[in-house]
Formats: sequence, C-alpha cells, structure tokens
Amino acid sequence: MSGQQQTRGNNLDPWFPSYAERTSGLSASEVRALFAVASRPEVVSLAGGMPNVSALPENLIRSAFDRVMTTNGPTALQYGSGQGVPALRENILRVMGEEGISASVDDVVTTTGSQQAIDLVAKLFLDPGDVVLAEAPSYVGAIGVFRSYQARTVHVGTDDEGLVPEALRAAIAAERAAGSAIKFLYTVPTFHNPAGVTLSAARRPEILDICQSAGILIVEDNPYGLLYFGAPPPPPLRTLDAAGVVYLGSFSKTLAPGFRVGWAVAPHAIREKLVLAAESAILSPSSFAQLIVSEYLDTADWRSQIGTFRNSYRERRDAMIGALAEHLPELSWTVPDGGFYVWVGLPPGLDSKQMLPRAVTELVAYTPGTAFFADGTGRNFMRLSFCHPTPESIRVGIRRLATVVGGELDLLDTFSGTGPLASRRPRRRVDSPPPDLD
Amino acid sequence: MSGQQQTRGNNLDPWFPSYAERTSGLSASEVRALFAVASRPEVVSLAGGMPNVSALPENLIRSAFDRVMTTNGPTALQYGSGQGVPALRENILRVMGEEGISASVDDVVTTTGSQQAIDLVAKLFLDPGDVVLAEAPSYVGAIGVFRSYQARTVHVGTDDEGLVPEALRAAIAAERAAGSAIKFLYTVPTFHNPAGVTLSAARRPEILDICQSAGILIVEDNPYGLLYFGAPPPPPLRTLDAAGVVYLGSFSKTLAPGFRVGWAVAPHAIREKLVLAAESAILSPSSFAQLIVSEYLDTADWRSQIGTFRNSYRERRDAMIGALAEHLPELSWTVPDGGFYVWVGLPPGLDSKQMLPRAVTELVAYTPGTAFFADGTGRNFMRLSFCHPTPESIRVGIRRLATVVGGELDLLDTFSGTGPLASRRPRRRVDSPPPDLD
Repeated sequence: MSGQQQTRGNNLDPWFPSYAERTSGLSASEVRALFAVASRPEVVSLAGGMPNVSALPENLIRSAFDRVMTTNGPTALQYGSGQGVPALRENILRVMGEEGISASVDDVVTTTGSQQAIDLVAKLFLDPGDVVLAEAPSYVGAIGVFRSYQARTVHVGTDDEGLVPEALRAAIAAERAAGSAIKFLYTVPTFHNPAGVTLSAARRPEILDICQSAGILIVEDNPYGLLYFGAPPPPPLRTLDAAGVVYLGSFSKTLAPGFRVGWAVAPHAIREKLVLAAESAILSPSSFAQLIVSEYLDTADWRSQIGTFRNSYRERRDAMIGALAEHLPELSWTVPDGGFYVWVGLPPGLDSKQMLPRAVTELVAYTPGTAFFADGTGRNFMRLSFCHPTPESIRVGIRRLATVVGGELDLLDTFSGTGPLASRRPRRRVDSPPPDLD
Repeated sequence: MSGQQQTRGNNLDPWFPSYAERTSGLSASEVRALFAVASRPEVVSLAGGMPNVSALPENLIRSAFDRVMTTNGPTALQYGSGQGVPALRENILRVMGEEGISASVDDVVTTTGSQQAIDLVAKLFLDPGDVVLAEAPSYVGAIGVFRSYQARTVHVGTDDEGLVPEALRAAIAAERAAGSAIKFLYTVPTFHNPAGVTLSAARRPEILDICQSAGILIVEDNPYGLLYFGAPPPPPLRTLDAAGVVYLGSFSKTLAPGFRVGWAVAPHAIREKLVLAAESAILSPSSFAQLIVSEYLDTADWRSQIGTFRNSYRERRDAMIGALAEHLPELSWTVPDGGFYVWVGLPPGLDSKQMLPRAVTELVAYTPGTAFFADGTGRNFMRLSFCHPTPESIRVGIRRLATVVGGELDLLDTFSGTGPLASRRPRRRVDSPPPDLD
C-alpha cells in the first residue's frame, strides 16, 4: 500500500482489535489530503477536481428553489423513493439523450453523487480477492472503493486512444489463468480522469466485444462526456450495449457538486439490487436536492449552461497547454478534448510524489501519479487539473511548477555528476528532452 | 431469511454468478415495500416513519436558503469536506447540548442521514459472521445494514424499561461461549423504534457497565430524543461515556428528512476511520443541504420549532392510544413518552404478517413485527406509527384495524370450533382479553 497512510489503528486505539478486515484497506486519498493545502489562497491548486461553479448564474438556482418550494415543498422536505424522484429520473433521460443514450425511467437510480453509485456497484459485486479491471491510470476514488471491499484493481494499458484492446485481452487471460474472479471493467472512456484521453470510436465496439465474449460487466463512468471542447466525443459504450453496461452519470460537473446528485443506469436485475443497496446505505437520496436539480432541468436553459461550462474549461485547458509548452517543454502531456485533466509525464529520475513538498513551498499543488495506481507505481507522472483556477492562475501555477521541476532537474544533474551550471536554464527551453534525460 | 424477498438473482439474470456473497443478504425491507401501498390516498398508513413536515413553516427554509445563497453560494454549490461543513458541526454541538452531550467539533461527522452513519459504522467493524447485539425488536433499517455486511443480529430481551441487563449479560456470555465475535451493541435507548419504550435512568449506567466490562462498543442511535411529550428522557448514554459510545443523531425528525443530514459522534480513532469510509462512499455530504440546515440553526428559533413538533406528535400519540383503548382493548401496547411509534401485541393465534393484505383491503396499513427481528419472529406484534397521519386519520385507521382484527378473531374462533356468533362483537368491547385469548 505504498503511498497510503495505514489507518487500521494502533495500540492507542482500544477498538483496534475490533475493526473489520476491510478497514485496513481504508486510506486517506492523496487527492483528499491535498485539499487542506490547496485551500490556502496563496497556493495555485492544480490538484483537485473542483468544478468552476462561479460559471453558474446563481439566479438559476434561486428560481429552481423557489418553484420547488411553491409547488412541491412538502415532498422536497420528506423522505422519498430509494430509487430517486421520478421527475428527476425522467429529466436524466433527457440529459443522457444528449449523448445518444436511450433508456427507460425504470432503469435509472439516483445516487448521492456518482461516487455512491461506484460504491454501491462495488458492494453488490466484490468479494474479498476479486479483481476489477481498470485503465492505467484510473480514478483515485474508484480505486479506493474497490480496495474498501478488499478487491484488487488490475490496471490495463492505455495510450492516446484510451484502453488498448490487446492489453485488455492479455489482462483477462492472465487473471483467469491465475484463477482470479474478474467482476467488472471499470472505465472512464471519455475525457479520462486522470489521463485526459478518450477511447476512440474504433476501439469502443472492440472493447465491448472483448468484455461480452469474456462475460465481463462494464461499469462506464461518464461525468465529463458533455464537456467537450471541439467535436462531440464518440457515443458512450452504453449506446452500443444496454445489457452489459452499468452507466454512471453525474450533475457535479454539468451543474454543481454541492447537490450531490448523480445516477446509475443498469440492466434490470442489477438495477433492482442497486436500489436495495441504496436503501440500506441511506434510505433515500435527498428529495430536496433532487427536486431542485429536476426543476432546473425543467425550466432553465441547461444546454446553453453546459455550453458556458465548455467555453470556460476550453479556455483553461488552452491556458494550461500553452503554459506547459512555454515553460516545461521537457515534460510530456496529453491534450484533452474535454473534461478537467492533463496527464503529465516527467523526465526520468523525477518523482512527482517526492517533489510535492517542494511544489507546495513554491505555492503550487498537483496530484502525484501514484494516487491513480493501485500498485504504488506512477511516480513519474502527475495530474494537473485546469477546472478550478482561472486561466491567469493556471499560467502562474505552471510557471511555479517550472521552477520546481527546474530545481529538481538541477539537483538530479548535480547528483549524477554533470553539475548544475552546464545543464541549467538553456536546456529547459528546448523542445525535446536532452539525450541524457531520455 | 423468513419474510424477506431473496434478491441474489436467478437464472434469468446473466450476472447471477457474479454477485458478491453479501448480495444474497440484500432484501426489500417490509417497511419500504409498504411505501407504495401507503402512498395511495385512501389508505390510512400507520406503517411508515415519515415525519409531519407540514408542522414546519416553509418560510424558515426559504429564509435559510436565501441567506446561504447570499453569503455562501459558491461554497454551497461546491464539494466540501468529507467530515462535513464545520459551521454545521458547531451547530450540531449546540443541538446535542440540549440533551447534555458535550463533545468537540472534531468528533462530529455529518452524514447523508443517520442511516449512512449506521452503514459506515457497520462497514468499519463487521466481518462476515460477526455478531451485533440489538434490542428485541430493533430498527428494521439497522438489521438490514448488518445483514448486508454478512453479520448476524442477536436480539436481547427488552421490557417496558428497555434493554434488560440480565438478558444482555446472558447474550454476551452465550455468544462468547459459542465463539462469536461481538462487535457492538446497537441500541435506540430513547423512544425506541419500533418498541416505543425508553431505557430507564437506573439501567443506563448498568448497560454501560456491562459493555465496558465486556469490551463491547455501544452504537447509540438517538433520532427521537428531543421529541418528548412530558418530562425530558434520561440523558443519552454518550453523556456517561465518551470513549465507549458512537452516538448517532439526525435532523430528519427535528427538522426535515428531505435534506438527508444526520451525524455521528465517535471516539477519535473511530471518527478518523468514519471520515475515510464516508469519503470512499460519497466523497463529501451535500454542502448545499448542510449549509441550509446550519443557517436554519443559526437564525431560526429551532427550539421552539421542536416544541411545535412535540405538541403535534403528542396529540397524535394521544389519538392513537385513545382509539386503541376504545376499539381494540383485546390488544396490548406500549405507551411511548416520545418519538413516533406504538408497539402492539396481538392475541395468540393472530399473525400480523398474514393479516396485512386484509388490512390493506380495509384501507389501513401497519408494519408487521417480523420486520424488526432478524430471525423471522415477531408475527404476534405490529408497529403502529402516529407520526404522519392527522389525529382524525389515526382514529379512522384504528377503527379500520379493529374491523380487521375482529374479522381475524372471528375466523380464528370459527376454525377453533367456537363458532363466530358466540364470540363476536360483545367480546371485543371488554377491557381485558377474554380467557380463551390469554
């Protein structure tokens, strides 16, 4: 559990012997631990995944609230259905329709953010020792959930077109040969967190075909699909296969995360169990939050609001990519066509985790790549988020990061005997890495 | 699993072989299954636990919302801390202060209703086969959670003063002799759901002492403590022991359940793990809902509002107890000094579960006692809720119930050979049960 704080307890905790086995796998996520640091106003945080809620006009929320209280107050204040408010589930069908998904309102379960949907799917399927397949790298919050059910995340190779089909076939074969029970493939095919890549249209049917042939369920997590910067991305996997895909959606990025409203769409038998698991976990999701989101979708021009978000995030992505090219040409990075994240590769010898305290001293924060691997690898990567800071802050942050990386490279040169002076500033301005860093 | 619909799946579900072992324990709660029936307007539902939100003036919510958006809009719409909004946690200390609890703001974790707190505590402590001790009967939603983690609920005898200390000692001894790992005692000491009884002041230190001596953690669930009808109840167990009690509170009954805001107060080491488990499950609770509740507590006269709820529920309890005495004297029942529920014992030979379809035909609903036992017992009991219907509806409901019970007794007489005519109406009007029903 490299890079994770062990939290099962210790001899100072009288309840230490009582915890469940799974509790030893509960660990403070590196992303969450950074929130405290990142919240200091002088730090430019490129670490978190907080959306730019300032792009959402407050009056849209005020008028949705007002209409809910006027027309539906007692329902908003009361317990509701464990599956979620029917009116919202109808509206979720319209939102998913934007990406070509057709489903029945009966297939939809609303959840306390799509994080809860990941947790509930994991609870339904994962016994200790089971395997979940996921991209390399993968979403830190999903890896944590799978670990909390004592399952093992097996990473599958990705490239600029997302999951590599050959790598998926090989992983399935290897795990099955070793006797593992593979319960599902967890994937973020579009505007991946953290990798910033999108599974290509050509590969989507191939990935589905591999999973269908192997009898492996797909959990498709798609919080960013509508936040594209150019042409729309290829349609979700769910549009190609309703029986083999559990689809997860969220209003956290297209509206606001403060409501904690997400959803799952699942084949009937799984959906039934999801509702039971949700009722066991929370009885019912917040009627109040669900009705406000539903009213917003009924009456506000939400498509245009998503357009506003797209423009805001495109501008920020451009600021980040431009600043990286200007100040950190010795690094490599993905250029996302949507979403929130750029995945950055460091020159050999640099360690994003070891470098983080130095970065914080320079008043910039990022997420080390190790957060996104279940096996402690990823030290030569970092995730940079362009979702929350302004374009100007992003440029400041990348300049600070260049200072940090420059300092680390100098240190590396010093220890490798080349000496700092010979290799210092000029080298960092060229477009390709110098030979000794290849 | 008597009385529970098996939901692991069947041969029509292609994912049947993939579910986790725990999923076979997920079952539709009888209370939740009744919600569909109870929502038909012609049915008087004495089944659910929906609070009387119509006693909450809507303007209190409107002004709290308005102030949150004016002063704190971007925070309300954003992700927050996994432990919960600090301002709300401060206010929760004030609410708990009403019952004599003193704690640090650092000890409090806000959750998506206190149901989530039960779920998270269970996730932290319960391995398959572990034992949870709980009152006989116990809260249906907690039994379901423990089952979902493959633990076994062992019921401990109760009487009109709550948990019986001797029965608790005996249960601990018996389970330990059998080699079971007892992880905690789950208890609702005040205005019990469903039993309507309160653990007496004299027994509270004794129950604590038994658990302390045995090294058993107590999970004290107290959603109803402030809803007393006469004198305040004895102080919570948490006031007597901060190190051995995880305390659960909720705004669902003293404000409104639609926000889904509850909380846990736990010893430090457990609290740390609770936050990690909460982050894994939902990242963070709704900032929006938490800030509105906090603003309400900051500015509204919430103590007086709780007084309004008390008066409303006292009137409803009186209506129910009065109607039971008038129309169903052959039954026995508890008389709660607060909370939502009356626990009713049926004459021998009657089966509350079997009788339910007949009751629904007569347009009255209740919860069969079997819902509140993990072992399928409880058929000779039912839970009647007086929280949601008006006093007049309660009286109508009890009259309908009397028709149902009368019909069942007649049927019983017929089958036992006494014949219906000899025993019919007059017998049901006397104050004590006739000898043949003892």
